[in-house]
Amino acid sequence: MAILSDAATQVLVPLAAVVGIAFAVAQWVLVSRVKLSPSARGGARDKDVLGESLIEEEEGLNDHNVVVRCAEIQNAIAQGATSFLFTEYQYVGIFMSIFAVVIFVFLGSVEGFSTRGHPCTYSKDRECKPALFNALFSTVSFLLGAVTSVVSGFLGMKIATYANARTTLEARKGVGKAFITAFRSGAVMGFLLASNGLLVLYIAINLFKLYYGDDWEGLFESITGYGLGGSSMALFGRVGGGIYTKAADVGADLVGKVERNIPEDDPRNPAVIADNVGDNVGDIAGMGSDLFGSYAESSCAALVVASISSFGVNHDFTGMCYPLLVSSVGIIVCLITTLFATDIFEIKAVKEIEPALKKQLIISTALMTVGIALISWLALPAKFTIFNFGEQKEVSNWGLFLCVAIGLWAGLIIGYVTEYYTSNAYSPVQDVADACRTGAATNVIFGLALGYKSVIIPIFAIAVGIYVSFTIAAMYGIAMAALGMLSTIATGLSIDAYGPISDNAGGIAEMAGMSHRIRERTDALDAAGNTTAAIGKGFAIGSAALVSLALFGAFVSRAGVKVVDVLSPKVIIGLVVGAMLPYWFSAMTMKSVGKAALEMVEEVRRQFNTIPGLMEGTAKPDYANCVKISTDASIRQMIPPGALVMLTPLVVGTLFGVQTLSGVLAGALVSGVQVAISASNTGGAWDNAKKYIEAGASEHARALGPKGSDCHKAAVIGDTIGDPLKDTSGPSLNILIKLMAVESLVFAPFFATHGGILFKLF
Amino acid sequence: MAILSDAATQVLVPLAAVVGIAFAVAQWVLVSRVKLSPSARGGARDKDVLGESLIEEEEGLNDHNVVVRCAEIQNAIAQGATSFLFTEYQYVGIFMSIFAVVIFVFLGSVEGFSTRGHPCTYSKDRECKPALFNALFSTVSFLLGAVTSVVSGFLGMKIATYANARTTLEARKGVGKAFITAFRSGAVMGFLLASNGLLVLYIAINLFKLYYGDDWEGLFESITGYGLGGSSMALFGRVGGGIYTKAADVGADLVGKVERNIPEDDPRNPAVIADNVGDNVGDIAGMGSDLFGSYAESSCAALVVASISSFGVNHDFTGMCYPLLVSSVGIIVCLITTLFATDIFEIKAVKEIEPALKKQLIISTALMTVGIALISWLALPAKFTIFNFGEQKEVSNWGLFLCVAIGLWAGLIIGYVTEYYTSNAYSPVQDVADACRTGAATNVIFGLALGYKSVIIPIFAIAVGIYVSFTIAAMYGIAMAALGMLSTIATGLSIDAYGPISDNAGGIAEMAGMSHRIRERTDALDAAGNTTAAIGKGFAIGSAALVSLALFGAFVSRAGVKVVDVLSPKVIIGLVVGAMLPYWFSAMTMKSVGKAALEMVEEVRRQFNTIPGLMEGTAKPDYANCVKISTDASIRQMIPPGALVMLTPLVVGTLFGVQTLSGVLAGALVSGVQVAISASNTGGAWDNAKKYIEAGASEHARALGPKGSDCHKAAVIGDTIGDPLKDTSGPSLNILIKLMAVESLVFAPFFATHGGILFKLF
Repeated sequence: MAILSDAATQVLVPLAAVVGIAFAVAQWVLVSRVKLSPSARGGARDKDVLGESLIEEEEGLNDHNVVVRCAEIQNAIAQGATSFLFTEYQYVGIFMSIFAVVIFVFLGSVEGFSTRGHPCTYSKDRECKPALFNALFSTVSFLLGAVTSVVSGFLGMKIATYANARTTLEARKGVGKAFITAFRSGAVMGFLLASNGLLVLYIAINLFKLYYGDDWEGLFESITGYGLGGSSMALFGRVGGGIYTKAADVGADLVGKVERNIPEDDPRNPAVIADNVGDNVGDIAGMGSDLFGSYAESSCAALVVASISSFGVNHDFTGMCYPLLVSSVGIIVCLITTLFATDIFEIKAVKEIEPALKKQLIISTALMTVGIALISWLALPAKFTIFNFGEQKEVSNWGLFLCVAIGLWAGLIIGYVTEYYTSNAYSPVQDVADACRTGAATNVIFGLALGYKSVIIPIFAIAVGIYVSFTIAAMYGIAMAALGMLSTIATGLSIDAYGPISDNAGGIAEMAGMSHRIRERTDALDAAGNTTAAIGKGFAIGSAALVSLALFGAFVSRAGVKVVDVLSPKVIIGLVVGAMLPYWFSAMTMKSVGKAALEMVEEVRRQFNTIPGLMEGTAKPDYANCVKISTDASIRQMIPPGALVMLTPLVVGTLFGVQTLSGVLAGALVSGVQVAISASNTGGAWDNAKKYIEAGASEHARALGPKGSDCHKAAVIGDTIGDPLKDTSGPSLNILIKLMAVESLVFAPFFATHGGILFKLF
Repeated sequence: MAILSDAATQVLVPLAAVVGIAFAVAQWVLVSRVKLSPSARGGARDKDVLGESLIEEEEGLNDHNVVVRCAEIQNAIAQGATSFLFTEYQYVGIFMSIFAVVIFVFLGSVEGFSTRGHPCTYSKDRECKPALFNALFSTVSFLLGAVTSVVSGFLGMKIATYANARTTLEARKGVGKAFITAFRSGAVMGFLLASNGLLVLYIAINLFKLYYGDDWEGLFESITGYGLGGSSMALFGRVGGGIYTKAADVGADLVGKVERNIPEDDPRNPAVIADNVGDNVGDIAGMGSDLFGSYAESSCAALVVASISSFGVNHDFTGMCYPLLVSSVGIIVCLITTLFATDIFEIKAVKEIEPALKKQLIISTALMTVGIALISWLALPAKFTIFNFGEQKEVSNWGLFLCVAIGLWAGLIIGYVTEYYTSNAYSPVQDVADACRTGAATNVIFGLALGYKSVIIPIFAIAVGIYVSFTIAAMYGIAMAALGMLSTIATGLSIDAYGPISDNAGGIAEMAGMSHRIRERTDALDAAGNTTAAIGKGFAIGSAALVSLALFGAFVSRAGVKVVDVLSPKVIIGLVVGAMLPYWFSAMTMKSVGKAALEMVEEVRRQFNTIPGLMEGTAKPDYANCVKISTDASIRQMIPPGALVMLTPLVVGTLFGVQTLSGVLAGALVSGVQVAISASNTGGAWDNAKKYIEAGASEHARALGPKGSDCHKAAVIGDTIGDPLKDTSGPSLNILIKLMAVESLVFAPFFATHGGILFKLF
């Protein structure tokens, strides 16, 4: 048996989660030291700051008006974001209630709502709980997952809208201070999300065990609802938030920059607050719920496969909790990693920002490799068996270590490749920028080709990861590889959240009329954030691919499918149609952005035309109305793509059965991951090609610029095309492939018993 | 047994082919009646024309200078096209020789170059020929397929460059005359290709039978080389031609239209001849070799599966020849269909052109349905068995009729959907045109979304076709469905070839300085050709999907694979990587176009800068050098994508074995078909959105125009982006998915015995 006792596991997991939460709170406290009220004017000038002022410039520190204005803007953004999220939550509430009933009815009907127990499938000698109670507990864990996701996303948004103006104000003292404020705030989000996710899952398992007792099959089947809940919420967060952020952005730009010729983030633009709100609800709350969904799903996939393996059959609690232990170690590792950015090294110049963020990835990956080795040695027996589609397969603890580690390192490779293809420090983006010389068309062609090309290495990394972990430990290996990739989620999210916070900080600096110097500092923070955002997306897609494969494996196991044969008509048509879904879904999300943006354009035009003195700056625009319109439009426009994702598994499973559904899931997975990576990298490359020309940091870049040149105009067109690709349709595909898989997993017993009506009829 | 005797089959098949060839020759003779030498000035003024002059206007019929100029231009285009094809054939020759050796060595090595026979696999009581001779005959049929494809493509190009100026001259007499000339010339290409393909295949089978005698397994295994040969040639035709045509087009436009501000097809532009050559080598020779490849491959796939079914085992020659009989009926049906366009109905006005072309599709499909029913009743026994991955499956003749018919009708549906999404008579393209109001970026976003959306219905049509034909007759059903879709290939190709001929005719009219009125007529012909080109591409992709599935089925049968289980690591990684290949390949082809276009741009710029009097029209540009540069660049640039296609099956099969290769083929198929359809429709939609604004035929269109407006400029950007998508990377994907499949099929015995080295080592 394992070295770690069950009792130690029972202590370790919640302890790590609590430490993570405490760390997040500590970071919050540190951020809150930056005062945002002019009364406490001395607050920002304590000893440390005075000490630093020797090396960094201080500017406008005593300008109370700036502080007041920043606070006002921050308040408007926070209110807008809160109002969007609350509106979203109303719809989420309705949706979740209906879907909870659907889950209960579908799963309850598997054994005709019988309240009688039955012998377990894999431990024949044990009595398992009735399907009706599995339905009930699945529903409960579904709601738990959704609520946890809501709380995590909401808190993330809160801290982001709390930190943005503080980052702006710190930028007066220098880029290092601003960086630390933004990064600490990101860390609050990262650690809260990772720790909350772990803690709630852990508590749910322990509470459910009170009822299930010895029936671990039923227990962990029910727990899968947690993943479905998290992922359903991610649908709203990612898709709704994605539409919001781009509709506001495009709407603001089309009227402001193009028609009225005023700069970005100009306070006269009525959509400017909505634009900044968008960053918080799309890139913070949306990204957070997406990654939380991945985390919850891969944990659930691993647990459900483990429950029918030797861990579950022999009731080895520590072995069973191995996925949770990996995540616990991850929290501690990320905590140490964060200290490297905030306390051990210090940022003193603009050019140190990007390396500092990249160092976070390397440090966390290196430390985590050690952490995984340690926990694999402590928590796993030397040999155990894993369920492999009908048979048991022997695995060693070092084999399993390899599965987790390969996922972790595949994530790092994907991150680095993404950076190579989207950062303007390297030739691919520079080539795209160069293509602007012959106009927007060549820019777009080169950008698309770049996106296609950027798929190659990540796919090979994923393929190797799949092959190794699959060969070693079947679907449990895949699930653990996914969890390995997500084990440093706290650091990943910190970096991700840092981006939009810096972006907002820049917007606030512009709106508050702060000096060019400060704006330059926030721009530098933002530029680094752009690349890390692309890395974060690559990471999110890579993990989504592994997660959905793991969920797919758990689904076929649970549905009793032994073979998914491409050489059968039911599977091949599923495969073909499944591979089509990402296109259908992308067409929908892109159209949604277009329609929502159009509503925004009309409102902004209306305000410019009807509010006298708006262009002259003597009258204030009606920011709140733009926020409201963006909110309503994005919620309305997310319904068609959302329905496609939620209904496909239900319709296919019910009408065509588990074989075709397996085909659909596999097809959507293999096709969706390519579309997602290429869309997100193409968009990122266009964005940075534009920034490359604007910044003019090299001879080559200056030859293409300056702002307003023909080249720059061509680059702006590319950037605008890329916006919905990289922030809406691309990342939303994660949700498509994950959510369809986890939904199939939860409904597997229903499809296995009642599915395939159409084929049964003919 | 079947009603049709073996002797009747032996007569019918070659008879149909010969009738087809005779019909093509007759059409050529009719086209040649349009005289292109000023000496025979009365030639075009015979009785018929004089009679028609009552209803149609005649213009400049006596202007000898125009005729001389047209003849000159035609000559330059024909020379350019011939020189490209000859250069291409040199490379093809080298490649084919090397690859022939590879085939011989790989297949010969299967049984260690032994010259001893062995008992047949499926008819155990018979003696089969040694693998070495299979290798030899496979090599021979490979070369035969390649040569047939070369001949067909070359003849198509010849007639196209023979007909283009004649169409221009006929346009002086009215749109109807011009239409018939262009259409007849297209028919020459269509019938020659279909009939040649059938005849050569038929003769090859009969000659091979002299050696093989009773060993039909070996005979039809060797015949698969014919498909590989046709498809390898298609790689050069489609990819090389595709790069050529777009490099010349983009090069001509970027310098001519954008930098020098001269109109399209202006004789001062040095790249103008190369641009017109491109239409002939890309859209005529390339498209022809692509469809010929599909035709040859689906025939071979059907034959190889039939040879191990009851037809082959019982030596039922008529049943065995069912695929050839379907094609024979197709030639006769298309012949009748053509008469509807050329003799029965007559085009009198511009608006009748598109309906006339569409009527061709409907008439041929309706007649062909009857034809298939007839031949299924005559040539097939009421019941027979088909090989279905290790077991035999009983099929009725009506079942098989249904397979062929569903393929045929699926093709029609795909054609219509493609038309809906790419013709500017319907709302999708009009919406894209409308999006130009807010600039190029929204145009591109809407166009991409349109392409994604246009995938949905074709995929469902393909999925239904696959399900029905697969369920009825396994992989034989799929192959026959593909052949059903291709049974009206003569009509399809006539329509396809009509487009570039009309395009050229317009170019010649412009270059020869003919009047605006005539240019308007050729433009109308060309606009209809644009939509039919999109339909042709949809058709080519749809049939490619079915063909490669059939080839995939034949491959797994031949490689002895019984199950391709997605739940095995070897298959799933194949699937993931395979789905990535279309992206890699597209990135390569798009880059290739970019690089080749850049070389062209530099040459055109050089000529404008160094040839005095060129802009003023007093000096002639060096057309030939542009043709040469385009030729060399496109041949050079097609090497990387070509190598990717040719090497992938060899590398995967040899290193990873048949399971992974099966995954790769399935992944590339399901992913590639989506990328291909969306790329080709997106490009078509942008092209026609631009044309919609230019034509200004409606209130809405006029509001967006005229030429040169901001909207129009945005539309031009979209069109330029679409060019490589719709004419190079999109259609080239057909080759990717088909060629990899047929190559795997031919090398299957090698992979089955010696493949998977890497997995064997570890």
